[in-house]
Amino acid sequence: MHTIHQKFEISYSYSVFFTQNIFSPENPVLANFLNTFGAGDFQRKALFVLDEGFVSHYPQLQENINRYFTLGNTSIRLSGPMLVVPGGEAAKNDPALFDEIVRAIDEQGIDRHSLVVAVGGGAVLDLVGYAAAVSHRGIRHIRIPTTVLSQNDSGVGVKNGINYRGKKNFLGTFAPPVAVFNDSTFLKTLDDRDWRGGISEAVKVALIKDEAFFTWIEQNSAALASRDLPTMEKLIHRCAEMHTEHIRSGDPFEFGSSRPLDFGHWAAHKLEYLTDFQVRHGEAVAIGIALDSVYSWKVGGIKEPDLKRILDLFEKLGFRLFNEKLSENDKINLRQGLSEFREHLGGRLTIMLLSAIGRGVEVHEMDDALIAESVDYLEKHYL
Amino acid sequence: MHTIHQKFEISYSYSVFFTQNIFSPENPVLANFLNTFGAGDFQRKALFVLDEGFVSHYPQLQENINRYFTLGNTSIRLSGPMLVVPGGEAAKNDPALFDEIVRAIDEQGIDRHSLVVAVGGGAVLDLVGYAAAVSHRGIRHIRIPTTVLSQNDSGVGVKNGINYRGKKNFLGTFAPPVAVFNDSTFLKTLDDRDWRGGISEAVKVALIKDEAFFTWIEQNSAALASRDLPTMEKLIHRCAEMHTEHIRSGDPFEFGSSRPLDFGHWAAHKLEYLTDFQVRHGEAVAIGIALDSVYSWKVGGIKEPDLKRILDLFEKLGFRLFNEKLSENDKINLRQGLSEFREHLGGRLTIMLLSAIGRGVEVHEMDDALIAESVDYLEKHYL
Ligand SMILES: NC(=O)c1ccc[n+]([C@@H]2O[C@H](COP(=O)([O-])OP(=O)(O)OC[C@H]3O[C@@H](n4cnc5c(N)ncnc54)[C@H](O)[C@@H]3O)[C@@H](O)[C@H]2O)c1
Ligand SMILES: NC(=O)c1ccc[n+]([C@@H]2O[C@H](COP(=O)([O-])OP(=O)(O)OC[C@H]3O[C@@H](n4cnc5c(N)ncnc54)[C@H](O)[C@@H]3O)[C@@H](O)[C@H]2O)c1
Ligand SMILES: [Zn+2]
Ligand SMILES: [Zn+2]
Repeated sequence: MHTIHQKFEISYSYSVFFTQNIFSPENPVLANFLNTFGAGDFQRKALFVLDEGFVSHYPQLQENINRYFTLGNTSIRLSGPMLVVPGGEAAKNDPALFDEIVRAIDEQGIDRHSLVVAVGGGAVLDLVGYAAAVSHRGIRHIRIPTTVLSQNDSGVGVKNGINYRGKKNFLGTFAPPVAVFNDSTFLKTLDDRDWRGGISEAVKVALIKDEAFFTWIEQNSAALASRDLPTMEKLIHRCAEMHTEHIRSGDPFEFGSSRPLDFGHWAAHKLEYLTDFQVRHGEAVAIGIALDSVYSWKVGGIKEPDLKRILDLFEKLGFRLFNEKLSENDKINLRQGLSEFREHLGGRLTIMLLSAIGRGVEVHEMDDALIAESVDYLEKHYL
Repeated sequence: MHTIHQKFEISYSYSVFFTQNIFSPENPVLANFLNTFGAGDFQRKALFVLDEGFVSHYPQLQENINRYFTLGNTSIRLSGPMLVVPGGEAAKNDPALFDEIVRAIDEQGIDRHSLVVAVGGGAVLDLVGYAAAVSHRGIRHIRIPTTVLSQNDSGVGVKNGINYRGKKNFLGTFAPPVAVFNDSTFLKTLDDRDWRGGISEAVKVALIKDEAFFTWIEQNSAALASRDLPTMEKLIHRCAEMHTEHIRSGDPFEFGSSRPLDFGHWAAHKLEYLTDFQVRHGEAVAIGIALDSVYSWKVGGIKEPDLKRILDLFEKLGFRLFNEKLSENDKINLRQGLSEFREHLGGRLTIMLLSAIGRGVEVHEMDDALIAESVDYLEKHYL
């Protein structure tokens, strides 16, 4: 009896809109999208899930959203009470929050033609995206990221996830949103650490792909460090553009082993754990990039002046480039991160290093002694 | 700042292999697949999850699988102890089983380049497929379906899921397997109800798409009813072929409202619930098809002789075509199934009816009184 061969393609598309004051009644960006999306002869509904840490700075938020949907002539209506969930990594550590969102999807009658809208930092977007992706085998979701990191990186991508059994993002899916709305006005209330943190993802894409962008960040490092919003908008736009371009032209659902955008991330992930998330993602990424840049220099990938440019940029931006946990236990704790990284991805170890500023290069092994020396270098200069 | 437009395609492919005695050391089908799949310079592993109700009939199963991997020269090795989970709907009702599988994936170090292999009925395949799909954002999985229904329908498709808050398949994803192996020898131990049940899915695809196949089933109804294995193999092959073809040429991840393969299923799903799953899926589908066929006749879609052919075929195959729960509470309980069906899919109500044997037609409303009359018809003839 002959073998049956199955083969098909699924096509995804979404837009990342840039706007200000998204819920102001005069701003048509969201309403326009909803009205195109919502065409049809049945009522679509939207369930909002909000980041508590964000809401605390915008006490009028729920009222504004309600008003937007009442006045806004959107063809989509709110499905019921909005959910507010804790922000930050706590959102991804507590399975009860996943249940809460799934329950609301059920109780508020959100079906596969309705929407879940997540408003918040990367952690809340990851949680909500996951809950939506597995409810009814996939509820469409909109992301309204409210941090630098989520506006230029996590929120414009295709991944979601929650932590499980102490492993970061152990449960999750690839599930593109139907739209992303980046509202720069929301960034004003970020604390300095989160304002700064997200910049490291921009430095990352610049380093592996675009020297001109790296130079632009250098030239604008003072403005960025002093919280100039228009400069930050430009940084976010370019970073989001490179990020989405990379996904599109690469391996969006990561079937292979290569993950160039994870430059600096093997050490970053481990450091987040070793510090019990006291070091935040973007901060850890800065250290991870610094470490892998030193390593790249040690193996002859980049020259010393380039290394210096990289480390100086991070310093100007206000990043700390060393953390005690890096050298703890004779660096063995840190180095375990390498095998954990391979395990999470599976397959062959594949690590991005630099061969120049603006040019990444993949390697398949890293030398323990050189990693240790790179840690020592950072310790010596940045302790 | 200009809007960023993202767009990409993901391509999926897998084969459905037909074989006998898949774990016999002489049978190369599985080993051949694993060896092609497993090429590369790192060790891939496979975690087996087995259906307890199935294993109880094959006490040597684990030993045979172990032997196959030891002798078989497969480039992939077993990752550790196999899991055995309860079969039938219980598999999808108990969230602890989901956790158990995810935990094993973690503890046995199954990464995105390794495999989870599910062996069992549709319920176990749905559970395992879901757990694999969300672990590490998507572990590849192989299905070895062991019931008629899972070999000709659920196991060759792209969906998985578990029940949640009393709602069937509330949590789940679309996640194609990397391969499916249909071993007909496994069907010998099915009880009569499960042997028969899966045939209704073949009648379903025949009715909506292929009159010649329907006639073939009629001609072979006696052989099927008397458990002739070669006839069943042919039925399964043709049904699986039509099923995969339909997915490929349609809307594999069901972004739209149309679900032709759900012919007869709105009532079937409701009946499963109303009987607390005492009526099994395939049995419920037979009744659901009978009901929608009577309804199709009542609205002038099919002629009376065609209706008679359909009902006679189900009778010859041994199906019961009425259940008391259909008329309970003045049929209101049953009719609620229609709005629940719409809600699960979302969007516009879309129901498949018949315009001829071999030709389905979609409608967007059903008349309450006519549904009640159709139930009365079945009650009168088949109580
Ligand atoms: N899915 C992906 O592809 C991907 C990629 C990178 C990172 N991530 C994840 O993103 C998470 C980090 O996201 P993040 O950096 O956005 O931080 P975050 O979500 O942890 O938020 C940080 C804090 O800022 C608060 N907050 C959010 N918006 C605010 C605002 N406008 N003003 C004031 N406070 C605000 C939050 O409540 C929280 O307390 C991590 O869990 C990381 O794993 C995901
Ligand atoms: N994913 C999909 O697209 C899809 C489609 C249709 C149905 N389904 C699901 O499939 C499930 C029904 O699957 P099913 O009909 O295969 O039944 P099942 O999985 O419920 O199994 C029925 C019983 O047979 C036992 N069993 C399995 N194989 C056996 C064998 N070879 N010999 C003896 N006993 C055996 C099981 O332990 C169980 O007790 C339902 O949960 C239904 O929702 C899923
Ligand atoms: Zn990152
Ligand atoms: Zn079915």
